[in-house]
Amino acid sequence: MKRAVVLLSGGLDSATVAAQALTDGFEVLALSFRYGQRHVRELRSARTVAKALGIGEHFIVDVKLNAWGGSALTDEAIAVPTEGVQPGTIPVTYVPGRNTVFIALALSLAEAREAVAIYLGINAVDYSGYPDCRPEYLAAFQGLAALSSKVGVEGQVPRLVAPLIGDTKVDIVRRAIALGVPIAQTRSCYQDTELPCGVCDACRIRDRALMEAGCPDLATPVGRAGYRADP
Amino acid sequence: MKRAVVLLSGGLDSATVAAQALTDGFEVLALSFRYGQRHVRELRSARTVAKALGIGEHFIVDVKLNAWGGSALTDEAIAVPTEGVQPGTIPVTYVPGRNTVFIALALSLAEAREAVAIYLGINAVDYSGYPDCRPEYLAAFQGLAALSSKVGVEGQVPRLVAPLIGDTKVDIVRRAIALGVPIAQTRSCYQDTELPCGVCDACRIRDRALMEAGCPDLATPVGRAGYRADP
Repeated sequence: MKRAVVLLSGGLDSATVAAQALTDGFEVLALSFRYGQRHVRELRSARTVAKALGIGEHFIVDVKLNAWGGSALTDEAIAVPTEGVQPGTIPVTYVPGRNTVFIALALSLAEAREAVAIYLGINAVDYSGYPDCRPEYLAAFQGLAALSSKVGVEGQVPRLVAPLIGDTKVDIVRRAIALGVPIAQTRSCYQDTELPCGVCDACRIRDRALMEAGCPDLATPVGRAGYRADP
Repeated sequence: MKRAVVLLSGGLDSATVAAQALTDGFEVLALSFRYGQRHVRELRSARTVAKALGIGEHFIVDVKLNAWGGSALTDEAIAVPTEGVQPGTIPVTYVPGRNTVFIALALSLAEAREAVAIYLGINAVDYSGYPDCRPEYLAAFQGLAALSSKVGVEGQVPRLVAPLIGDTKVDIVRRAIALGVPIAQTRSCYQDTELPCGVCDACRIRDRALMEAGCPDLATPVGRAGYRADP
């Protein structure tokens, strides 16, 4: 059975991608990070989701990007925005180099354990402000992977797979439902509150998609109350 | 004053590169890793060297690549070779994805702290078996850096600088001497013995260069005793 590494944050997108990898026939190695994120409780969801999907191996690695901060997610001095998504800008929730660090670690694991694919929940639609979620970024990383590794020299380079890259959030919710993802167990919120806050960008984007996909019960109370369908 | 991140392992090459960055006029942020290396005592040398060179900030980050092993340096079950360097092969001391992980973390720090250069002790001559020490690898990473980061979109992309990439080890020793590197404080050995072992690849390459550069006092006793100049 072929093996795939899946970056699993505990959010909706990465859970969907994990389910996709399993459906695609891979034995999945899940990989999560304690990177100094303020919403570290997302890792509880990552564990629950991995278990619910029947993933046998789940690595949780410490890599403290909060040693230098530079993001609302890793620096207590920068607040998480709650006023709504601002299109066309790079949000302060962008974490410098995060995806590059995470994919590099996934490549290391893939090479050590002979995985042939790396599944990523990267999405270029709702998070278009994040430079490291763009298709051209991913293509460049695929090129680097071929050069960086022993397998690149001697064998098969792991393929970077980003099934959601062109999806809207509603597409992702529909895919999650189709794949049997335990959506209620996932957590996307940027805050460290016990219940998802409903007002950070991650909650807003997720809630709106859940409402539009016809799953109001899965949205936060705040999101449900504030939802207005486009005219 | 412009800032540079320097990857500092505690070995001769990275210490030389740190001294080079200072000589080039940069304020240096040193970055070292506890990656589960068996020779973790190299970090003592990294601290000593950073202090000796007058580097103000030194980050030491945990990123446990031994969670999945795959190298003699991160997996107790794989022995460090002591029989001499085998040219033309990828040695078992190669750590899957290590440089990719380290450079990714350096990019994250550089972006968060607005550093414009990343100095690397990468060398393609003596370590020609390591795929992630080749110039084409570095060029690909430079391309990725431009796409991956906020600065790539909004400002200046950190330049990856590898001053030693084409040097022989003797060149590096000579450069280290010229730059005033405290060579005796550096440590290159792959083993965790209190004194450098003199028989691992790193010791052999270093000892030979020190002898050829006319610094026998800095070589290990084993290396000194075993040295024979080429006819």
